[in-house]
Amino acid sequence: MRTFDSGKSTFVEVGPIQVARWEQQYQFGTTLPFGAMWYTVPPGESSVRDCHPEPELSIVVAGTGFVEVASGTTEIAVGSAFLLDSEEAHVIHNRTADSPLTIFSAYWMPLADQLAEPALVGEPADV
Amino acid sequence: MRTFDSGKSTFVEVGPIQVARWEQQYQFGTTLPFGAMWYTVPPGESSVRDCHPEPELSIVVAGTGFVEVASGTTEIAVGSAFLLDSEEAHVIHNRTADSPLTIFSAYWMPLADQLAEPALVGEPADV
Repeated sequence: MRTFDSGKSTFVEVGPIQVARWEQQYQFGTTLPFGAMWYTVPPGESSVRDCHPEPELSIVVAGTGFVEVASGTTEIAVGSAFLLDSEEAHVIHNRTADSPLTIFSAYWMPLADQLAEPALVGEPADV
Repeated sequence: MRTFDSGKSTFVEVGPIQVARWEQQYQFGTTLPFGAMWYTVPPGESSVRDCHPEPELSIVVAGTGFVEVASGTTEIAVGSAFLLDSEEAHVIHNRTADSPLTIFSAYWMPLADQLAEPALVGEPADV
């Protein structure tokens, strides 16, 4: 068994939040079928808007999250989870005055047929 | 975005613990590269000994876990994680008097070359 202590991880600043990506501090080889991280949003702060091809499953492990996506903002209590789709833009808010918000996230590349179609930037010119 | 509220999940009794397997209440298709569940160990209780080919990554989301494996028992604080190897037997204890222990777990079949060799139960007979 291996253990991973969020309190002893090395967090790096990413804008207003602190992020500890597991692959930067642990050796997993091919054991995990996903990338993993903890991140902390300080009281009153928000993450920068993020959008990526990997679906992302997140578990709130401390505090209360407010997760903003295109359809609105949802409150996520400690112990609950949210799954972001591939290419779903998101911002994570900590609306409390004094409680850090800490989240565990797992993310992975989707199957090829689950990737969003690349956006067309123009029609081919007539030739 | 989809959300998963541990407090609104349907838990079923598995010995002394309550388990909510995600695939029994949500439709994921091939989105997730792992199975997932929440489980709760009541105060003073322990899970039954479990051992399976799937590695299992667990996050303590409420309470404090004591995880017993062959090499000993380790305390896991809320927000921290533990990774059980393929075929690593484990028992999860809640040693508190009044606080439920709730854990999120993800589990998956390992790559073929990571599976434990089947135990030999005897040498082939001479012929």
